[in-house]
Amino acid sequence: MSLIVMKFGGSSVGTPERMQRVAKRIIENRQAGNRVVVVVSAMGDTTDDLIDQSKLLNPNPPAREMDMLLTTGEQISVALLSMTIHQLGHHAVSLTGWQAGIRTDAVHSKAKITDIRTDRMIKELDAGHIVIVAGFQGMSEDGDITTLGRGGSDTTAVALAAAVKADVCEIYTDVDGIYSTDPRVVKCARKLDEISYDEMLELAHLGAAVLHPRAVEYAKHYNVKLVVRSSFTYNEGTSVKEEVTMEQGAVVRGIAFDKNVARISILGVPDLPGVLATVFGALANNGVDVDIIVQSGVQDGTADFSFTLSLDDKDKAVAVIENLHGELPYNKVTSEENLVKVSIVGAGMVSNPGVAATMFAAISGLGISIKMVSTSEIRLSCVIDAEPLQDVVRALHTAYGLDTAEQAFVGGPQDRR
Amino acid sequence: MSLIVMKFGGSSVGTPERMQRVAKRIIENRQAGNRVVVVVSAMGDTTDDLIDQSKLLNPNPPAREMDMLLTTGEQISVALLSMTIHQLGHHAVSLTGWQAGIRTDAVHSKAKITDIRTDRMIKELDAGHIVIVAGFQGMSEDGDITTLGRGGSDTTAVALAAAVKADVCEIYTDVDGIYSTDPRVVKCARKLDEISYDEMLELAHLGAAVLHPRAVEYAKHYNVKLVVRSSFTYNEGTSVKEEVTMEQGAVVRGIAFDKNVARISILGVPDLPGVLATVFGALANNGVDVDIIVQSGVQDGTADFSFTLSLDDKDKAVAVIENLHGELPYNKVTSEENLVKVSIVGAGMVSNPGVAATMFAAISGLGISIKMVSTSEIRLSCVIDAEPLQDVVRALHTAYGLDTAEQAFVGGPQDRR
Repeated sequence: MSLIVMKFGGSSVGTPERMQRVAKRIIENRQAGNRVVVVVSAMGDTTDDLIDQSKLLNPNPPAREMDMLLTTGEQISVALLSMTIHQLGHHAVSLTGWQAGIRTDAVHSKAKITDIRTDRMIKELDAGHIVIVAGFQGMSEDGDITTLGRGGSDTTAVALAAAVKADVCEIYTDVDGIYSTDPRVVKCARKLDEISYDEMLELAHLGAAVLHPRAVEYAKHYNVKLVVRSSFTYNEGTSVKEEVTMEQGAVVRGIAFDKNVARISILGVPDLPGVLATVFGALANNGVDVDIIVQSGVQDGTADFSFTLSLDDKDKAVAVIENLHGELPYNKVTSEENLVKVSIVGAGMVSNPGVAATMFAAISGLGISIKMVSTSEIRLSCVIDAEPLQDVVRALHTAYGLDTAEQAFVGGPQDRR
Repeated sequence: MSLIVMKFGGSSVGTPERMQRVAKRIIENRQAGNRVVVVVSAMGDTTDDLIDQSKLLNPNPPAREMDMLLTTGEQISVALLSMTIHQLGHHAVSLTGWQAGIRTDAVHSKAKITDIRTDRMIKELDAGHIVIVAGFQGMSEDGDITTLGRGGSDTTAVALAAAVKADVCEIYTDVDGIYSTDPRVVKCARKLDEISYDEMLELAHLGAAVLHPRAVEYAKHYNVKLVVRSSFTYNEGTSVKEEVTMEQGAVVRGIAFDKNVARISILGVPDLPGVLATVFGALANNGVDVDIIVQSGVQDGTADFSFTLSLDDKDKAVAVIENLHGELPYNKVTSEENLVKVSIVGAGMVSNPGVAATMFAAISGLGISIKMVSTSEIRLSCVIDAEPLQDVVRALHTAYGLDTAEQAFVGGPQDRR
């Protein structure tokens, strides 16, 4: 008898039919003799609808009250899912975050889990009940309702799996698993059987929206075995775990890309100590995260430097830098949109020196210039113009031997292609 | 400085404009130097929408899960109302039932309040915050979310008022107060300045849907001063309290009516001990409440008897009685719809013997026959055909000197007449 945590996202329970399919899936696991804890997100557009309602009344509401509002979305999901399971003749108990014992700090809208008191869950599991927990939420020491922020339900699932010592944490989604790249871009993308936490982290950070990086970090830290699989098929999915079998020749495991990229350049900055600290300190204080930073050589005592950041933050960042003009006598600030970051990820890269050369050759072979480069031990990223993105991803996918003969199956009924 | 509990129903907060008006109303009370606790119901159709959603998945869901589902309606209301108050520059804190310390028994869907732990509310009030509590809900000893059933938000308001020793509990609604009868029927209905708990209880039970009887009972028990008033006007409303000033000549204070009435007659029942107990015991076991019971004289060893009940329960009651035919050899069962119960209510009735005669004379003066009669110390009810109801209510209203010169104003913007 195993203890299994199953997590379903909002689109998996977005209609009565989907809710029923999810309920059957859960019951199958229970009938196989397993103890089952389920984590659910808010259905479909519930969260967006609640945000829209609140905007009409307060464009900038207190985070505490926003948490109070948004957590109702998951509470509705768990109650309805539990009712559906009862209708199918099985006993389920829905629990809010606080009822499931999820204690957090008091940082509303992005709280961190501090502790999980599993008594109630264990009591229900011991009674043979299916336990259904509202994702994304917890309770602070003061008894206030908190939310875990983006990717919160994934994090809830992993944290519960760690707390109850689950054998596996299954993340159900509308794709079949983790792919070597986005199958909407490369039809012969390869579904991965296994991937390591570190590789998954790089892919997650780079825009493969299947699993939230924070949940992956949590899983790595507590050594929780994750399986990403489809709620629409019985295919095996992708295991995310510490040690993975190295597939033959598969030095690069996946190709990720991020379209939400802008570049800002500051030209003619005096070459003095502390200049970078001034700029990036000011950006950090304003909540702007910077990704790749490149500084050109010094000429006539001044330097140019450029950095990439999220497109959404571009205007704010330019304003911050213009505000610095008093203390930082640069020449001018320019910015650029319509960029993408393409990355190859694989734990085997560090010991295979030819990997970078293959990437540069594939891109320049298409006549495309590389604007910026950044590396980690298991990742190599290039910033290029947005327009040739598809050609570049396909060329890289082929160059690293990732193409499969069959076409990828991705998505639920709504986007089966 | 007073401590005021203000309760707003779902229609008072059903649109952003109404929510803002309610927020301003609350802020005015706070700015006048009062400590303010607010109780809110779910907005507009929220509860019905949630019930509809659940029906699709389970026509007969467990009460515990239904409570989990429905309590989100009030949680949404309190969060949005708090945000609205913040937007207007004041500090509010929304609390769910369990956060407000409302403890109940574990009878889901109709829980009773057992205890209110006021620490959190008092802490927030001491900090100068407006406290906004979700109506209709509480928490059982086991940590499950419960609901108080029909009229639940009124009960929450009165119970909180008793627990925090509020000076007054104001029930805001879409009418101006308690009227001598339904102003939609009698245009010159009189708004009452005061009414006693007992009179209000009779009126509430008799279909004046403004205040739930349970909340009135609670208020009487804890001697909480209630004021029923409009959320759309600044008119004074109606005070509900123990001792009321007897208005000159106003022996009858109000005229109520109930259209949800059916009559069942059982004919030719053997005149044996225990017959009534058999019938009404079986009905009670099936959840059917009986109102007026009349037994005819015994003839040839058999009797006829009739009783009234809620129209909704008629078919069920007939089935129950037909099931009894084995042990109770009656002749036949008949039932009748299209009836109404008209009642006069007033604490002065008991010491004014002419009151009943006036009622009978007014009704028979219209050529209408009275089918059944029932009395209490402060009430006299007649069951008549439904069709002449309006004429009867108008005639009684005039006969007891209740007409005013001015026309009643009732209702919010949506039904101003």
